[in-house]
Amino acid sequence: MSQLFGGIEAGGTKFICIVASGPDCIVEQARIPTTTPEETLRKTVEFFQPFVTARQVDSIGVACFGPVDLNPDSPTYGHITSTPKPHWSNTDVRGVIQRALRVEIAFDNDVNGAALGEFKWGANRGCDPSLYLTIGTGIGGGYILNGRPLAGMLAPEMGHIRIPHDRARDPFPGNCPFHRDCFEGLANGPAIQARFGSRGEAIPDDDPFWDVEAEYVAAALVNYILTLSPKRIVLGGGVMRREYLFPKIRRNVQALLNGYVVHPNVLADVDGYIVPPALGHLSGSLGAVALAQTG
Amino acid sequence: MSQLFGGIEAGGTKFICIVASGPDCIVEQARIPTTTPEETLRKTVEFFQPFVTARQVDSIGVACFGPVDLNPDSPTYGHITSTPKPHWSNTDVRGVIQRALRVEIAFDNDVNGAALGEFKWGANRGCDPSLYLTIGTGIGGGYILNGRPLAGMLAPEMGHIRIPHDRARDPFPGNCPFHRDCFEGLANGPAIQARFGSRGEAIPDDDPFWDVEAEYVAAALVNYILTLSPKRIVLGGGVMRREYLFPKIRRNVQALLNGYVVHPNVLADVDGYIVPPALGHLSGSLGAVALAQTG
Repeated sequence: MSQLFGGIEAGGTKFICIVASGPDCIVEQARIPTTTPEETLRKTVEFFQPFVTARQVDSIGVACFGPVDLNPDSPTYGHITSTPKPHWSNTDVRGVIQRALRVEIAFDNDVNGAALGEFKWGANRGCDPSLYLTIGTGIGGGYILNGRPLAGMLAPEMGHIRIPHDRARDPFPGNCPFHRDCFEGLANGPAIQARFGSRGEAIPDDDPFWDVEAEYVAAALVNYILTLSPKRIVLGGGVMRREYLFPKIRRNVQALLNGYVVHPNVLADVDGYIVPPALGHLSGSLGAVALAQTG
Repeated sequence: MSQLFGGIEAGGTKFICIVASGPDCIVEQARIPTTTPEETLRKTVEFFQPFVTARQVDSIGVACFGPVDLNPDSPTYGHITSTPKPHWSNTDVRGVIQRALRVEIAFDNDVNGAALGEFKWGANRGCDPSLYLTIGTGIGGGYILNGRPLAGMLAPEMGHIRIPHDRARDPFPGNCPFHRDCFEGLANGPAIQARFGSRGEAIPDDDPFWDVEAEYVAAALVNYILTLSPKRIVLGGGVMRREYLFPKIRRNVQALLNGYVVHPNVLADVDGYIVPPALGHLSGSLGAVALAQTG
């Protein structure tokens, strides 16, 4: 039997916990609602305890919602720092699990976890460097280079880049509390909802707003392509479940680049260059398993 | 005596050639005007020949103007591909030098060379990852990670990212032949000249345009910071010789980030975070020496 690892996608709504060696060998899984840190982390520990006691698992990856402290030299390494989510500010997620189970914990943020999962087993498999972008309640990107998420001075926060905002066509001022009309402030799920007064799911496919949304996403992708030069880009998150956005985004990326990035991935095979995720709701927890394996 | 290496900054105006082991040990240097490929490369070979014959140099780095082919698997690896500069399209810079001198050639583009030079011996020393941006006739960036320039699907072309363009304050349409008002099309030297009908050097320090220029540079830097998270940024190139732009750019970066990137480099020590180059006119040729040493 393959070596087993624990994987936790620690999200703001639920913790997805798995014991697995990969997507084809998931031996146990659970969804634990995110309530208080005490209750949620206690149930998480209880889920893994039998596997640890049986010495089937000695390393667990955590892909955690944030903001989180990823600096191993910091006294608050592995903590959720300041979050608007009630009860969770200054929670030592990594430390609580590590002290209860006494196993190795590989800790990263949720988007880096999903990026690593899609790189190792999903739609970005074999593509190094590659980019995973999630467009949902927030917008975040994970860049995998040399098999690992890029860790710079801090983890990237590429959802907050500045892009052109055509106020004539889209007078919405943006909803980012820090930057107002940065990419996230213009294009995340709550920004769509704020424009229409209803959830994005209720907006029909032929609403002209989707052209605007696709242009924002394309402008951001062009900036990432020119800066990071990934070999493939996976777009996940709630907004991108509207799959007919993909062709619009691809066309806009090609139009904006205008032949400048001379590579067949972008010029001839853009359908294979900007793609949906392949691991579904498990990209984060499988990414956490990959984190544990990467060490 | 230290091992010596050759370094060539192959520019569109001149080739700067040095034999050195580092900035404190430059044993010979020459400036060769960029005329035809035949003449320029012949003089370059003649400069290095005695050192190669004496077995003092067995490896030469080339930091070359472009666009260049950096894919080692390509039949045109080491070529300048399609350039508007007369005579130089499809020039096999690497191959001509390698066949004449029969030494190892480490080949990269000019901005990656300068980025590596400033990382190894200049203002980005000790900062990994770090970013070097040149703002001159063109705009380009080199990102050093794990001691090497980032090589993705293609070399990054981060000068061409999209940034907000306030047409009310700055009706100039941009001069990029591919993207019109991308960052380079708004903020490079020729774009400044096109607005005023005179070279940037002739525009007084108190012209309100410099506030606009500083905002464009700051918007681009914010995007690079959020995407690449460098530990320091060096700004070089002709436009940045106007040093009083630095404080304006730093203030705008802080205003745009608005406290979002919580790190003392950006919050408290922005004067040490966004800095001029330290190697002067030798950052490219010394970077080429560093390329040769890195292999």
